[in-house]
Amino acid sequence: MIRVTVWNENRSEQLIPEMKEVYPDGLHGALASFLGKEADFEVRVATLDQPDHGLPDEVLNTTDVMLWWGHGAHGEVPDELARKVADRVLCGMGIIFLHSAHYSKPFKLLMGTSCSLRWREGEFERVWCVNPGHPIAKGIPPYFELEKEEMYGEFFDIPQPDELVFNGWFRGGELFRSGCCWHRGLGKVFYFQPGHETNPTFHNPYVQRVLVNAVRWAEPVNWRNQLDAPCQEKPVEAMHADGETLTEY
Amino acid sequence: MIRVTVWNENRSEQLIPEMKEVYPDGLHGALASFLGKEADFEVRVATLDQPDHGLPDEVLNTTDVMLWWGHGAHGEVPDELARKVADRVLCGMGIIFLHSAHYSKPFKLLMGTSCSLRWREGEFERVWCVNPGHPIAKGIPPYFELEKEEMYGEFFDIPQPDELVFNGWFRGGELFRSGCCWHRGLGKVFYFQPGHETNPTFHNPYVQRVLVNAVRWAEPVNWRNQLDAPCQEKPVEAMHADGETLTEY
Amino acid sequence: MIRVTVWNENRSEQLIPEMKEVYPDGLHGALASFLGKEADFEVRVATLDQPDHGLPDEVLNTTDVMLWWGHGAHGEVPDELARKVADRVLCGMGIIFLHSAHYSKPFKLLMGTSCSLRWREGEFERVWCVNPGHPIAKGIPPYFELEKEEMYGEFFDIPQPDELVFNGWFRGGELFRSGCCWHRGLGKVFYFQPGHETNPTFHNPYVQRVLVNAVRWAEPVNWRNQLDAPCQEKPVEAMHADGETLTEY
Amino acid sequence: MIRVTVWNENRSEQLIPEMKEVYPDGLHGALASFLGKEADFEVRVATLDQPDHGLPDEVLNTTDVMLWWGHGAHGEVPDELARKVADRVLCGMGIIFLHSAHYSKPFKLLMGTSCSLRWREGEFERVWCVNPGHPIAKGIPPYFELEKEEMYGEFFDIPQPDELVFNGWFRGGELFRSGCCWHRGLGKVFYFQPGHETNPTFHNPYVQRVLVNAVRWAEPVNWRNQLDAPCQEKPVEAMHADGETLTEY
Repeated sequence: MIRVTVWNENRSEQLIPEMKEVYPDGLHGALASFLGKEADFEVRVATLDQPDHGLPDEVLNTTDVMLWWGHGAHGEVPDELARKVADRVLCGMGIIFLHSAHYSKPFKLLMGTSCSLRWREGEFERVWCVNPGHPIAKGIPPYFELEKEEMYGEFFDIPQPDELVFNGWFRGGELFRSGCCWHRGLGKVFYFQPGHETNPTFHNPYVQRVLVNAVRWAEPVNWRNQLDAPCQEKPVEAMHADGETLTEY
Repeated sequence: MIRVTVWNENRSEQLIPEMKEVYPDGLHGALASFLGKEADFEVRVATLDQPDHGLPDEVLNTTDVMLWWGHGAHGEVPDELARKVADRVLCGMGIIFLHSAHYSKPFKLLMGTSCSLRWREGEFERVWCVNPGHPIAKGIPPYFELEKEEMYGEFFDIPQPDELVFNGWFRGGELFRSGCCWHRGLGKVFYFQPGHETNPTFHNPYVQRVLVNAVRWAEPVNWRNQLDAPCQEKPVEAMHADGETLTEY
Repeated sequence: MIRVTVWNENRSEQLIPEMKEVYPDGLHGALASFLGKEADFEVRVATLDQPDHGLPDEVLNTTDVMLWWGHGAHGEVPDELARKVADRVLCGMGIIFLHSAHYSKPFKLLMGTSCSLRWREGEFERVWCVNPGHPIAKGIPPYFELEKEEMYGEFFDIPQPDELVFNGWFRGGELFRSGCCWHRGLGKVFYFQPGHETNPTFHNPYVQRVLVNAVRWAEPVNWRNQLDAPCQEKPVEAMHADGETLTEY
Repeated sequence: MIRVTVWNENRSEQLIPEMKEVYPDGLHGALASFLGKEADFEVRVATLDQPDHGLPDEVLNTTDVMLWWGHGAHGEVPDELARKVADRVLCGMGIIFLHSAHYSKPFKLLMGTSCSLRWREGEFERVWCVNPGHPIAKGIPPYFELEKEEMYGEFFDIPQPDELVFNGWFRGGELFRSGCCWHRGLGKVFYFQPGHETNPTFHNPYVQRVLVNAVRWAEPVNWRNQLDAPCQEKPVEAMHADGETLTEY
C-alpha cells in the first residue's frame, strides 16, 4: 500500500463561492476521491486550518507520497513545518506539487530557485507529452487539452528538470514546462502545472491518470533516518579487512 | 507479467572450461534462474547460435525487457538484427546491457558514442550507490563489494547518463560509472558494468537485486508502432475545432 | 581562432527558384556571411557536390566547429563520411545541426534515436528561451518571433537534451524542443529547429546571435586522437608508485 | 573583464598555526594570487570578519563570479546575506563552492538538499575526469593526484549535477562526485571537493587550472533584475498584434 496524504490549503474553497460548483468537497476532496479508487493507495486528506496544519508528526511520518495544493496562504505555513516536509522528502518521501504550489515553501526549499513565472487566468491549454517512455506518461496520448486553465509561462525559474515529461502550449502565445521531475535526497518531486481552483481540471481523466501515475512513480524506494554528515573514521577498505560494511545512507 | 528475454552470446561458455564451474548453465542460465523466481516475470533465454540468432521477430516482438550479454562475438550479430533490437527499444522495449555488452552493436547504436573505456581483469570492486532514491537502488546499501571483477575504468565514452545510479571503485586506482540509465525513444536502457564471465558476479545477491529492479524499471510504459516523421497537414488547433485529436506518438 | 566549416547540401538552391530571392548565395553563403563577421571565427563553406562531398580529410581534420544543413539528399552522404564526421565529434569537434538536419546521417548516428517528429510548412513560430543562463542564450530576450517557419512538433524522438535552451511555440497548436544541447564524446552537439530553406530565418538577428553563440559554446575543449578501449594492464596505483601517469583520454 | 570575488571565512588561518606554512596569505590570498594572473580576471578578496562580512551591496552587486570557502563558521554568515548571495546567483552571478563550503548557507539554499556526505582527513585522492569535453576540464588529463586531501565520500546528498565533470577516488576505499555543475536561475554553480585548509591543494597546477576554467565557465551570460512572478495580463499573441514584445526575464 502507498500511503498518500493530500494536503490542501483549503482557503479558496471558503473565499470563492463558485468553487463549490466545481469542487463541492474542495480540491482535496476531489483529489482524494479519484486517488482513493486505486487499490494500492491508502488516501488521507489534510488542510491548513486543522491542528498542526494537518501535518502532525504522526501523519507526516506515515506518509509515502504527499500531494500539495496551496495558493494565497503560502505564508501561513510555518517555516518549521515547511522544513519538516522538505526533510521528509530528502529522507525518501515522494511529493507532488500542484499548480500554484510552485510558490509554496516546501517547493521553494527543495528547488533552491525563485520558482517565478508569468501567469494569466482563463486560457486554453494543450499539454504535450515530450517523454512518452516516462512512467508518469503511462496511458497519455501525444497531447490532451484543457479548455480553461491558468496560463503559466516561461521563464519558469526552476532547476533543469531531471526529467521533463510535459510541455504546455497556451493559445495566448505562451508555453511552459508543465510536468517536471526531480530527485531530491532519497525522495522524488513532481511538479504539475494544471489545476487552477475554479477550473474542472482535476475532473479531467488524463489529469487524473497523470496524478495516479505520479504517485506510483514517487513511491519511496529506500529511506534514510537522518541527514547528518558523519565522520567515516575507519576507511571502508579497513572495514572490509575486518569483515564490516556500511548499512545506512 | 513482464516478458523478459535473456540474450547471451554463449561463446565463452564453450571456449573457457573453467566457466562451467561458475556458470554450469551458462550466463543466460544463471540470469534466467534468479529472474525466473519473480512472480511477475516471464523469462526466456536466447543465444547467438540459435536460428535467427535467438531473436526471430516472434521473440523480439513479444519481449518487454531484454538483457544482453556479449563479448568476443559482437561482430557476428548482423547489423539488421542490431538495428531491429535498437528500434524495438525506440518503440518501447526496455533493455539491460551487461558488462562487455558496452561494445555490442545495439548498445553502440543506442548511445551514439564509441563506448570506449579502460579495462583489466582480476580486480577488487566496490560498487557505490550515488542515487539511493532510484528504483534500481531499491534494497541496495551504500555500497556492495565484488572480490573479483574486471576493472572497467574512465574515461567511459557514453552520453551523460539521464540517471547515474552506481559508481564503481577499483583497488587498482580506477573508478567507473558502473550503473547508468538512459531513455531512448519510448524505451529505457540500463548499463551495468559488473559481470565478467569467469567471476561469480551474477550469484551475488546485490547484483541479482539490481537486475531484478532494473527489469521492473525498464518495463515498457507506452508503445509506438512506427518511427516515421509524418506530415501534420492539419494544425492541431484546426483538429481541435473539428473535435479531433492525435492518438499515436 | 575557431575554425568553422559550414556544410550545406546545396540542392534546394538548385531546385527551388524562389530560394534565390531569400538566399542569393545559398544557405551556406548566408551562414558564412554573418559568421564571418566574428573576429575569432575563420569560416569555410563546403557542399555536397564538391569533391569528397566537400569534406576531404584535410578539411574535416582542421575543423573545430561544423554547421550542417541538409534535407532532401541526406541519403547521398556516404555512410563512411557520416561516420567520420560523427567520430570527429567524439574526438572533440563541435557540430551544429540546423533544421531538417534532424534527419541527417551524422545527427542520427550521434543521437542513437529515430529523430522523428511532426512537421508542416508555413507557420508562425515564437521561440521561447527556457535557459537564459546558457551561453547560447547570451543576448536573447525571453522570446523572439519568426513570421514564417516550418512547424516541427513533438514527439521529437531525441535523447533528453543535456541542456534544453529553446522551446518553440507554433500558432497552429504545436510546440517543439527547438534548441537542444548534448555532449557526445569530447565534442558538443547543438540542434536548432528554425531554418527552413524558403524562409528568411538566417537573416533574423536573433537567429544569427544564437548561432554565433552556439559556435563559441561548441568550441573544442580537449581533443582525443583515437576511440579505442585500451587494456590498462598496469593499475594506476602501480603507475603512481613508479612515478607514472596517464596522459591520453 | 570578469569581476571575481574570493570570499573566505578566514578563521582556520587564525586557529591552525601550521596553515601559515601552507598558505601564508590565507586561502583567499592563495586563490587570489593565481586567479589574479589571468588577464581577463579582476580579483578582489573578502572575508567574514570584514564589515558586512566582506560583502556589502557594492561588492556583491559588482561581482560576476564568486568563490566561497568556509568551514567552522558557516553559522556566522547571516541568513539575509546568504539569501542575498543566492539571489544574486539566480539573477546571473556565477559561484564556485570549495571543499567544506558544501555545508555553507548559500550552497544549501541553492541546492535544496541536505548536502550531507562522509568525511575523513588525510587521504590520497585521484581526481578522474569523466567529462573531458566540458570547459572546466580544459587542459586536464584523464586524472590528477593529490597526495593528501580530506576524503569526502558518498552518499553526497546533492541534486543530480547538470554536468558531472570529476569523480574522486580515495585510497581508503571511498569515492565522490568531486566536480559538479548546476544551473540555478540565470546563474551557474560549480562545486569542487578538493581544498582542505592544511593541504597544499590550491598550489596544485591542475587544481588551479580547474578553478580558472570554472570562473570562465561561470561567467554571467544574461542578467535579471528581479525574481518576481508578474501577471502577463496581455497575451503575447495580442502583444505581437500590437507590435510589442517582452524584454525582461
